Amino acid sequence: MWVKRENEAIRDILFSPIARELQEVEERLRAGLESHSSLIAEVSSYVLGSGGKRIRPALLLLSAKLFGYEDGSRSVALASVAEYMHVATLIHDDIIDNADKRRGLPSANSRWGSHVSVLVGDFLYARAIQVLVEDGDFRVLKAFADATVSMAEGEILELETFKKLDITYEEYLKIITCKTAVLISAACQVGALISKAPEEQVKAMADFGLNLGIGFQLVDDALDFAASEEMLGKPVGNDLVEGKVTYPLIYVLHQDQSPERDHIRHLLSNGQLQEVDVERIRRYVTEGGGVLASVEEARTYLRKARQQLVPFPDTVARRSLEMLVDFIVERKW
Amino acid sequence: MWVKRENEAIRDILFSPIARELQEVEERLRAGLESHSSLIAEVSSYVLGSGGKRIRPALLLLSAKLFGYEDGSRSVALASVAEYMHVATLIHDDIIDNADKRRGLPSANSRWGSHVSVLVGDFLYARAIQVLVEDGDFRVLKAFADATVSMAEGEILELETFKKLDITYEEYLKIITCKTAVLISAACQVGALISKAPEEQVKAMADFGLNLGIGFQLVDDALDFAASEEMLGKPVGNDLVEGKVTYPLIYVLHQDQSPERDHIRHLLSNGQLQEVDVERIRRYVTEGGGVLASVEEARTYLRKARQQLVPFPDTVARRSLEMLVDFIVERKW
Repeated sequence: MWVKRENEAIRDILFSPIARELQEVEERLRAGLESHSSLIAEVSSYVLGSGGKRIRPALLLLSAKLFGYEDGSRSVALASVAEYMHVATLIHDDIIDNADKRRGLPSANSRWGSHVSVLVGDFLYARAIQVLVEDGDFRVLKAFADATVSMAEGEILELETFKKLDITYEEYLKIITCKTAVLISAACQVGALISKAPEEQVKAMADFGLNLGIGFQLVDDALDFAASEEMLGKPVGNDLVEGKVTYPLIYVLHQDQSPERDHIRHLLSNGQLQEVDVERIRRYVTEGGGVLASVEEARTYLRKARQQLVPFPDTVARRSLEMLVDFIVERKW
Repeated sequence: MWVKRENEAIRDILFSPIARELQEVEERLRAGLESHSSLIAEVSSYVLGSGGKRIRPALLLLSAKLFGYEDGSRSVALASVAEYMHVATLIHDDIIDNADKRRGLPSANSRWGSHVSVLVGDFLYARAIQVLVEDGDFRVLKAFADATVSMAEGEILELETFKKLDITYEEYLKIITCKTAVLISAACQVGALISKAPEEQVKAMADFGLNLGIGFQLVDDALDFAASEEMLGKPVGNDLVEGKVTYPLIYVLHQDQSPERDHIRHLLSNGQLQEVDVERIRRYVTEGGGVLASVEEARTYLRKARQQLVPFPDTVARRSLEMLVDFIVERKW
């Protein structure tokens, strides 16, 4: 609980330059669900209200602010699109992963059943497109549409590599790029687009988001081995249980040549993992340096992200984005 | 088998004015899946290839032809969008309905699991949006985006009325309008839009499609009681098993006052229906006039659809659309 409060405080500081707009995003997210079926409203509000950090809306707003975007109308609407899309994929993800928990609360899937989850995800995605059509900018639409195709491809690639112990770094990076980084990249890019930023700066922000997203996911994958359930809001070792082979594990399976490696491979290849197995694999991965290696790799991407910000004037928005990058490595969320 | 062949022959005649374009749609549907994950290509090809009648692409193409649209490039691309969207909803539908069969073949859901189905549906929908962005016409995008929001709402409304025996005609009509008619309406409307038809004719085609779609679904619901499994490509009485209360049943439950009615209500309210129960309910509904009433109601909508075509010049496209309307009542598919 203390960790959670600390993180909320840090988030408030990081996002202080866009506090007002983020508040408007919250209102818009809710308003966009009004006048529809009560079940849609109930499930969507539950998922939207269950402690999302609003990273994507915040990045879109900060990116716009970086280019001096003042009129909040488009940025707030498009920030809500980024969150609708993110939440839609989370809801569908939970079906795929059979996840019981999401951010410490029962997943929509476990609460209402996958039938409802499929449709509420579809609805949120369709609403997002509707808002984009109202906004009326094809470059913005293209950024988000391309991201969603990639996200579906990334998810499927992840399914295809389920429990695949010889997954390559390249395959893994492709998955996290598609699954996580492209939408973050789109959010950053759209902030620049609506500010009428020059082409190379739009590109710089897309690259910033892509590197940030990859770094973010690498840290996330490390935390799944190293954090506590209280911090994560979901069980530790969750990726293992779901058959996902992530960076820390890939690293150790590559490095280690001891007999323990064969035993771990055997455990991972065979059926359902027991709690004691998960614990053993976690220890194996952390002691073998997998967590450190994943964070080290994350740092490489986050450095690249930070580098993209160097040419910009030293404004509040830039400082906030830099702090966000730095904080990702420190984060416990 | 004979019925199937007969229907294919009729379809070939109906769609003869757009045979070449429909062939191009097939190629485009396939090409749009290339270069992506092999699993996506496999599952999508399976679903796209399993005997869809391409009603929505055909309506879009015929509608365009009605207004003299000649250059096939946009019409073929947008016709493929209509089919991608339709197939995406079918795939997600099958998860929701736990359907084992679709068009006489195992559903994607039963073959690859709901995990894969969720994502392939998402992928197809995202690809559809991508094609719409490439096409670059906001009115077209709006027509399809609005349709998809309605489709998700309709599906959820259907879930909310699961096994609800006192569902009103209005609720039922809302569901089939959203689930089936709005996409058909969008396809017809888009055919007019790309032909630069005047506003009131775009509206006429949207209305044509809406009435056609409602009529089509009412006939479909009647067939679920009256046809044979061989004709339907899925078990008869499927809607009953899936807890869907459709027009023929609503009608009879409203009309009949006999003790049998209470027995039927009891059967429908309690758990899983046995084969013998389904047969008893089917007989009750057909003998009570539910099937005829549903087809009669369908005729009302189909007459309205036909009426929308009256002002148009007597062209091959118009005759084809009229025959399509007439054929819906006769159809066994």
